[in-house]
Amino acid sequence: MHLTDLPTPSLLLDRQVLIRNLEAMRARMAGHGVGLRPHIKTAKSARVAELAHGGVKGPLTVSTLKEAEYFFDHGFTDLTYAVGMAPAKLERAARLRAKGADLKIVTDDPGSAAAIGARAEDLGTRFPVMIELDTGGGRAGVLPDSAALMEIAGALEAASGTQIAGVLTHGGHSYHCSDLAGVRRAAEDERRGLVTAAERLRTAGHACPVASAGSTPTAVHAQSFEGVDEMRPGVYVFNDLDQVEIGSCRRPDLALSVMASVIGHNRHRGHLLLDAGMLALSEDLSANEFRAEVGYGEVCDLESLAPLPGLFVRNMSQEHGIVPVPEPSAFERLPIGTKVRILPNHACITAAAHDHYQVVEGTEVVDQWDRVNGW
Amino acid sequence: MHLTDLPTPSLLLDRQVLIRNLEAMRARMAGHGVGLRPHIKTAKSARVAELAHGGVKGPLTVSTLKEAEYFFDHGFTDLTYAVGMAPAKLERAARLRAKGADLKIVTDDPGSAAAIGARAEDLGTRFPVMIELDTGGGRAGVLPDSAALMEIAGALEAASGTQIAGVLTHGGHSYHCSDLAGVRRAAEDERRGLVTAAERLRTAGHACPVASAGSTPTAVHAQSFEGVDEMRPGVYVFNDLDQVEIGSCRRPDLALSVMASVIGHNRHRGHLLLDAGMLALSEDLSANEFRAEVGYGEVCDLESLAPLPGLFVRNMSQEHGIVPVPEPSAFERLPIGTKVRILPNHACITAAAHDHYQVVEGTEVVDQWDRVNGW
Repeated sequence: MHLTDLPTPSLLLDRQVLIRNLEAMRARMAGHGVGLRPHIKTAKSARVAELAHGGVKGPLTVSTLKEAEYFFDHGFTDLTYAVGMAPAKLERAARLRAKGADLKIVTDDPGSAAAIGARAEDLGTRFPVMIELDTGGGRAGVLPDSAALMEIAGALEAASGTQIAGVLTHGGHSYHCSDLAGVRRAAEDERRGLVTAAERLRTAGHACPVASAGSTPTAVHAQSFEGVDEMRPGVYVFNDLDQVEIGSCRRPDLALSVMASVIGHNRHRGHLLLDAGMLALSEDLSANEFRAEVGYGEVCDLESLAPLPGLFVRNMSQEHGIVPVPEPSAFERLPIGTKVRILPNHACITAAAHDHYQVVEGTEVVDQWDRVNGW
Repeated sequence: MHLTDLPTPSLLLDRQVLIRNLEAMRARMAGHGVGLRPHIKTAKSARVAELAHGGVKGPLTVSTLKEAEYFFDHGFTDLTYAVGMAPAKLERAARLRAKGADLKIVTDDPGSAAAIGARAEDLGTRFPVMIELDTGGGRAGVLPDSAALMEIAGALEAASGTQIAGVLTHGGHSYHCSDLAGVRRAAEDERRGLVTAAERLRTAGHACPVASAGSTPTAVHAQSFEGVDEMRPGVYVFNDLDQVEIGSCRRPDLALSVMASVIGHNRHRGHLLLDAGMLALSEDLSANEFRAEVGYGEVCDLESLAPLPGLFVRNMSQEHGIVPVPEPSAFERLPIGTKVRILPNHACITAAAHDHYQVVEGTEVVDQWDRVNGW
């Protein structure tokens, strides 16, 4: 089937670009002797997960218990649920462990650590728990030199329902750098924080089997992985306009796009209308931090993916994308019915708006892969 | 089942508030003798659609052909697909008409009108086509006094595959008004534009059986519906923080919320973490146009829906919502595991992130209703 036979909007995934991205990261991590535990929240697809490990059902990071269940059902057993654990989710997590999943969970709170231990004892399981660190990302996690780190470790080791699985961090501040030096500093923040925390734990006699870091920019640009056991990049599988600006990839590495049709010419307002709006594209604006004209996505030629000069989705409603045209001749070049591809700001969020990928190679549609959305 | 037995994040729909919203709009439209054709893109649920018409399978507006097919399968036959028609979608639309759906489509382009007619003849059907007008919304549509209006009408009447079903507009500029006078002006723009266009068509001997307008703000606040046959409000079924600011509803009319759990306390950064992020809430910011502190949503008490003072989702990642706390005592009041409800900016977009509603009455979960997402 040819691209143009697909309905619009459709989420397109270029298999050759995907595989190139996956191989590049696998080679980079292998070259540094660092384990790769892809954050599969980006793809939410067993097909992508398997390709990410070169055909092996290797370690994964997940963002929901639904993902954990889905990937376990697809044969992936080594799973880290990298979002702080809520007590009410322990029973569901314990069920997955009882089925045979090596599911690791995360906490950054001494009280939670103790509560997880107590509940796990009731549930008849023992959770391996990663202690989350804030190494500059500023989202979750305790500081590597904090008293809380040692309190959490103490609580995890005191209960028979828990054991320390290691330390974990996400250098999310790398997403706000557009220069190599900044990304490298974020990577070193991740590494140094992990090493600091791991050494403190080990010096105090605690276990710390794994030091886990990762974001796509830091995985791509870190200068040292000394003391880092595994990396958890996510968006590298597809890449996006934000990652191009951050410098994690180049434009030919963009594997994901949304195909849309021109559905109108508003000549008196000077814009085209596309049938991809807030729902098909998401309202993510991340690349605009670095490149303000991007809006909600860059409009490109259907077949070549070359940008159509000056055409960006600047406004949207639920099912309409509004693309101002720099000159009226664009209406003639893009008659109603023309199909285009839109490169998204943030692949993880755009992909989540769709329940499957149309897998393409060049202009041929070669497969359709499902996603596991929801919770 | 009690609210707290649900997993988080969950999309909650308060049935009593929903029914009150639906009855109020039905009464208002009936009182003015105006037809009600809800834009069901907000709810995407057959249960909501039926309640919207008081148990009758009445007229609906849809935003995708998938919605059209779903609602037809649920017994709704009178459907208007209110997004400009792309030629490649005509075959799918024709199949639905062949099954018995009275599916109306929309165009705002003379060339498209002719192309629809030609294709419809090939497909052996005759499409009723609404001519879309830009009455101030500035998205799609021709101007009511434009030459293009008459060209479209001529093309639709010239082909045996098309007939003029009427004129249609959406006063989307009402969404950017926070004062009653502004919304009323937008409503009058809709009405006057429709009447102008309908009169021009009729004077020229064309049919114009229906004049269709509508947005929630204009449906709620229009002072005159003279010449308007039907209204197509959408978000009124649920309402949202944006509609509160615009003045379409009051806070007790908010039927939709996202339930989330507190999953972390980042004391050194001064924020709470919730397990509802970009995917569970959407990245919509619409109410911030009027009330800049809202961020991605207002955090409220689980049971009372009273706002938790000063708590808003100000930052997010895919599965994390970040809520700065005005003072450290908030950590004590909201321990990890606490469940809260988040009021969204834009109900249509937040709801689309979920595949079903948890239907609640007060704190009891009374049902679960599916949504028809995707295309």
